[in-house]
Amino acid sequence: MAERCWIGFDLGGTKMLAAVYDEEYRCLGRERKKTKGYLGAEVGVERVIKCIQDAIDDAGCSLDQIAGIGIGCPGPIDPERGVLLQAPNLGWKNVPIADLLRKQFKKPVVVINDVDAGVYGEYEFGAGRGARSILGVFPGTGIGGGFVYDGKIFQSRRISCMEIGHIPTVPNGPIASAGLPGSLESVSSRLAISALIAQAAYRGQAPTVAGSAGTDLANIRSGTISDALEAKEPLVVEILTHAVVQLGRSIAGFVHMLAPERIILGGGLVEAMPDFFQKKVKDGMNEWLLPAYADCAEVVVAKLGDDAGIQGATAWARHVIGDREQPAD
Amino acid sequence: MAERCWIGFDLGGTKMLAAVYDEEYRCLGRERKKTKGYLGAEVGVERVIKCIQDAIDDAGCSLDQIAGIGIGCPGPIDPERGVLLQAPNLGWKNVPIADLLRKQFKKPVVVINDVDAGVYGEYEFGAGRGARSILGVFPGTGIGGGFVYDGKIFQSRRISCMEIGHIPTVPNGPIASAGLPGSLESVSSRLAISALIAQAAYRGQAPTVAGSAGTDLANIRSGTISDALEAKEPLVVEILTHAVVQLGRSIAGFVHMLAPERIILGGGLVEAMPDFFQKKVKDGMNEWLLPAYADCAEVVVAKLGDDAGIQGATAWARHVIGDREQPAD
Amino acid sequence: MAERCWIGFDLGGTKMLAAVYDEEYRCLGRERKKTKGYLGAEVGVERVIKCIQDAIDDAGCSLDQIAGIGIGCPGPIDPERGVLLQAPNLGWKNVPIADLLRKQFKKPVVVINDVDAGVYGEYEFGAGRGARSILGVFPGTGIGGGFVYDGKIFQSRRISCMEIGHIPTVPNGPIASAGLPGSLESVSSRLAISALIAQAAYRGQAPTVAGSAGTDLANIRSGTISDALEAKEPLVVEILTHAVVQLGRSIAGFVHMLAPERIILGGGLVEAMPDFFQKKVKDGMNEWLLPAYADCAEVVVAKLGDDAGIQGATAWARHVIGDREQPAD
Amino acid sequence: MAERCWIGFDLGGTKMLAAVYDEEYRCLGRERKKTKGYLGAEVGVERVIKCIQDAIDDAGCSLDQIAGIGIGCPGPIDPERGVLLQAPNLGWKNVPIADLLRKQFKKPVVVINDVDAGVYGEYEFGAGRGARSILGVFPGTGIGGGFVYDGKIFQSRRISCMEIGHIPTVPNGPIASAGLPGSLESVSSRLAISALIAQAAYRGQAPTVAGSAGTDLANIRSGTISDALEAKEPLVVEILTHAVVQLGRSIAGFVHMLAPERIILGGGLVEAMPDFFQKKVKDGMNEWLLPAYADCAEVVVAKLGDDAGIQGATAWARHVIGDREQPAD
Repeated sequence: MAERCWIGFDLGGTKMLAAVYDEEYRCLGRERKKTKGYLGAEVGVERVIKCIQDAIDDAGCSLDQIAGIGIGCPGPIDPERGVLLQAPNLGWKNVPIADLLRKQFKKPVVVINDVDAGVYGEYEFGAGRGARSILGVFPGTGIGGGFVYDGKIFQSRRISCMEIGHIPTVPNGPIASAGLPGSLESVSSRLAISALIAQAAYRGQAPTVAGSAGTDLANIRSGTISDALEAKEPLVVEILTHAVVQLGRSIAGFVHMLAPERIILGGGLVEAMPDFFQKKVKDGMNEWLLPAYADCAEVVVAKLGDDAGIQGATAWARHVIGDREQPAD
Repeated sequence: MAERCWIGFDLGGTKMLAAVYDEEYRCLGRERKKTKGYLGAEVGVERVIKCIQDAIDDAGCSLDQIAGIGIGCPGPIDPERGVLLQAPNLGWKNVPIADLLRKQFKKPVVVINDVDAGVYGEYEFGAGRGARSILGVFPGTGIGGGFVYDGKIFQSRRISCMEIGHIPTVPNGPIASAGLPGSLESVSSRLAISALIAQAAYRGQAPTVAGSAGTDLANIRSGTISDALEAKEPLVVEILTHAVVQLGRSIAGFVHMLAPERIILGGGLVEAMPDFFQKKVKDGMNEWLLPAYADCAEVVVAKLGDDAGIQGATAWARHVIGDREQPAD
Repeated sequence: MAERCWIGFDLGGTKMLAAVYDEEYRCLGRERKKTKGYLGAEVGVERVIKCIQDAIDDAGCSLDQIAGIGIGCPGPIDPERGVLLQAPNLGWKNVPIADLLRKQFKKPVVVINDVDAGVYGEYEFGAGRGARSILGVFPGTGIGGGFVYDGKIFQSRRISCMEIGHIPTVPNGPIASAGLPGSLESVSSRLAISALIAQAAYRGQAPTVAGSAGTDLANIRSGTISDALEAKEPLVVEILTHAVVQLGRSIAGFVHMLAPERIILGGGLVEAMPDFFQKKVKDGMNEWLLPAYADCAEVVVAKLGDDAGIQGATAWARHVIGDREQPAD
Repeated sequence: MAERCWIGFDLGGTKMLAAVYDEEYRCLGRERKKTKGYLGAEVGVERVIKCIQDAIDDAGCSLDQIAGIGIGCPGPIDPERGVLLQAPNLGWKNVPIADLLRKQFKKPVVVINDVDAGVYGEYEFGAGRGARSILGVFPGTGIGGGFVYDGKIFQSRRISCMEIGHIPTVPNGPIASAGLPGSLESVSSRLAISALIAQAAYRGQAPTVAGSAGTDLANIRSGTISDALEAKEPLVVEILTHAVVQLGRSIAGFVHMLAPERIILGGGLVEAMPDFFQKKVKDGMNEWLLPAYADCAEVVVAKLGDDAGIQGATAWARHVIGDREQPAD
């Protein structure tokens, strides 16, 4: 039991997940808790600490073996100071999460954005292996984006970025989370798509959805939507096609800017209809790509599912802690 | 009881309503039934006939007294032939409703579109009195429009029109009922607004809505929305403002085309927040109106509520039957 | 020479045109002058009077024979009071042109908008014959529109309308004459198209245009554009297709509102490439029309060219003066 | 004269410019020639070689002293292979420019995109000094973009990128160079702005422009536009404001993705009205930026003018050649 271990942590809007990995990325133990963001950041960080401790216990290893902690957080973070700047879904602001965990565990802590963690996970272990630069696009409640450039997570010194859901896309379009009319997430997120399908169901134009899920956004899950697609519900097919082709055009714009070698599409909705997403994103890209960029990026679907985040957080922590000397408090 | 009477009928997506009026438009009797459109047009017309008969009975008058029937129908109609061409909400097509009712009652029958009926009702008895041309705008499940021009319902010889919900408005915008991306109804209908608010509730950004109605479109009624507006829920205010200002810009375009003397806003959502709608529609109009048209149209709110349709159908039938000799079969 | 005659007048941005017609619409005389709007309205009306007098002289008839005058004006007019409300191209405002001409000639005068005059001309004598309602669409410096409904020019009591060039079309689109971003004229007018082609020429992407007309908007005439279309200059074809298909989608919106029996496309650019315009407008309409309206309007090209305005002004004056008693001062 | 020297080269659409710098970046000699792209790539490269040779002669130094050559090219390049992939303005494709120059001069050659060269110049010597990441935005015939990330030009292994002019911006907007409707360059480039102003001049709505430059795009230079802005020509002010605020919103989107520390606006039009651009870009950014990104990027104006390209090409060549061993053929 002399081996070193690493903690990967995924702090989500509704649940948190901790895992202990050995140096070959074998999972030795894990723990999951509800986030309960509404209890505030102080209680929240206590729950994070407890969750990490429980995962260590589950792994049957000692704190001494832990070489470092990587934690993915749901919002923009400051990578140098290890601060979660803002977590809209939790209602938290400016949480010095690296300091708090270092004080508790006396170990190096690396904070990253949760989508970046997932994309880095795919880069190291999943659909991004073998590429030097990958762009991850995850349509969910919003649209998450992450970019690995020349082998590293792309972020600014003071703030994570690649907030592709908040790019202007359709002037005077719908208002989404940030109050910005026609942002990409207002058009192509799973939630935006669900809401269009719910309207179709309300008007009697999506009977399979109306039958199985009604008109409640909380019930229209990825599976509901893929069932309606398979049933060839005409208006559902149109809604999906329109939203995903549009996403493809926006991705073409990202290719003109970033020229990633690979685009990785992920998230529950993509995974429920991978072929459809791959095809329609490519259709949208082909409408828009300049000839010189036509073949520079391949489009693939994510492979790791929910574990991308904890695996990526772990791998990134190892990458960073290997690079810099970090005081262990 | 020698007086002549008229039947006004409102055939809706979920319910039908018949009323008997005397020549001073006093209501002598009325009847309401469920439409049950899914039973098909033949059964449906039988239900219409029964509903009319029951209203006559309720009025205590005889068929001899009936001078004519006016019926508003939910979809484009052919005014010359008296045919309901298409009723998307009922799933009916090409129903020769004038012929069928004439055959039954041996009375002149006038068929109009249901929104036209409501607008004509407002013109004769409500918010449109005293104007020679009024444009009615009713944001509901879609967006109904009707235009009274020089004292008459504006329609083509072969088809009713003023389908303002299906005007291109936001290129690449959302897909609504007709599969057209970014039509006006996809942006500014009550249903489109509800769906944006449901998304806000889903993301935790509209707590009063989430608390009272959840995230189900069927539960987010006009009252739910006006409560959230009064509670000054910030994202709800933004969503409403954006949708209604946009409606105002589109109405400015209609003013450039039609120069109505008066704009009448109606429907449940408008009636739940009349001041807000009036103000924001004007804001949008003022952004866009050419100077020469700046003051040509006043903006008011409908007055008659649900009875506009039966009253308007009656009045239009009297107008038309007074004009032309119509064979009573 | 006892026959009655009528004066048709077309007041344009750069030239004015008067014609004398007999009751069979044979042209007995005509006169053309420069408008010189920059000299002001007072001088301008003097020039109009002189132009009419010269046309009467040219016809060899006496003032006694003149039954009335119809004058089309370049801007919104008040049909009841006979006032030119605003002429953006002339810089004139509130010119009581009917009063001024009546004072001079002691004859009934009817004032209409110049596009309405042209559309009414097509209705009576050209591409609109036999239809009861026609919508005229004329892409030029702006986009003129006119509508004949049930045999009459469609206008409000106090102001002409159908200003279809100033309809919101592309949110955040280009700024055109009225400062409105993305109005229809900013997208599909001849001038907007010319400006896109001039840019292509500037970038070396439209060699035939660059060779024959350079990059000056004043030199890129309808013929220049149709030559480039025939030469299959790729970017010119794309620019034209995009602009005209978009016009077609907007026209589909007008059909949903007005259900005209016939659409008449006119103006120099349309006449230089009639087949292309007819086809691409239909393509755009077919993308957007609801099934019930799919076949209600045919699309044709104007037939009368520049004479549509004077013929239409004459015919409308006869129509109106026949209808009402008008004091001859 | 033992010191080492470097060649910086800027290959432009109309002219080419070579300069010889010593290690303290003092300019020892320079030469300028017309590009004459229409003569083809082979002749073109001969002209490049001659231009370099003349600059060396002008500097009075020997070829032995030259340590390397950096050349900025007008189009996407392959940085590893040193190939100019496509030069739309020259009509060239796949020119192995590094190989050709190495064969001639037996020196290391580094090829970059011309906008990247200019941005790197600003980063090393101009408005970007002291920042670790800068985003350059240059509205000209198109809109050039360049990004320095963590001290290096941001590019992919096989292709340069940051083609921000070709991002989808206004759905169904104008067609620009690449045939893409509503790309950023179609809305906010100097050429797009000039074309809107030329239209205003054509309609008589921009008299100062009409007087000094007419309606020819080739005559409407940055100075013409800034004169009209200073004269407060109302429609010109609106056109400029609309285009630059829109650019600001798009830049906000880039900030969400890239979080640069500094935005550098450059090019002739910006330099002719630096305060206006800075203010209106900020206005657009403020409309759109998420709170967490509100203060992360400052907006400044470029300082080096036309020399940014040769200085940046030189500095980047030194950076790269210092990094890697490059065979000198």
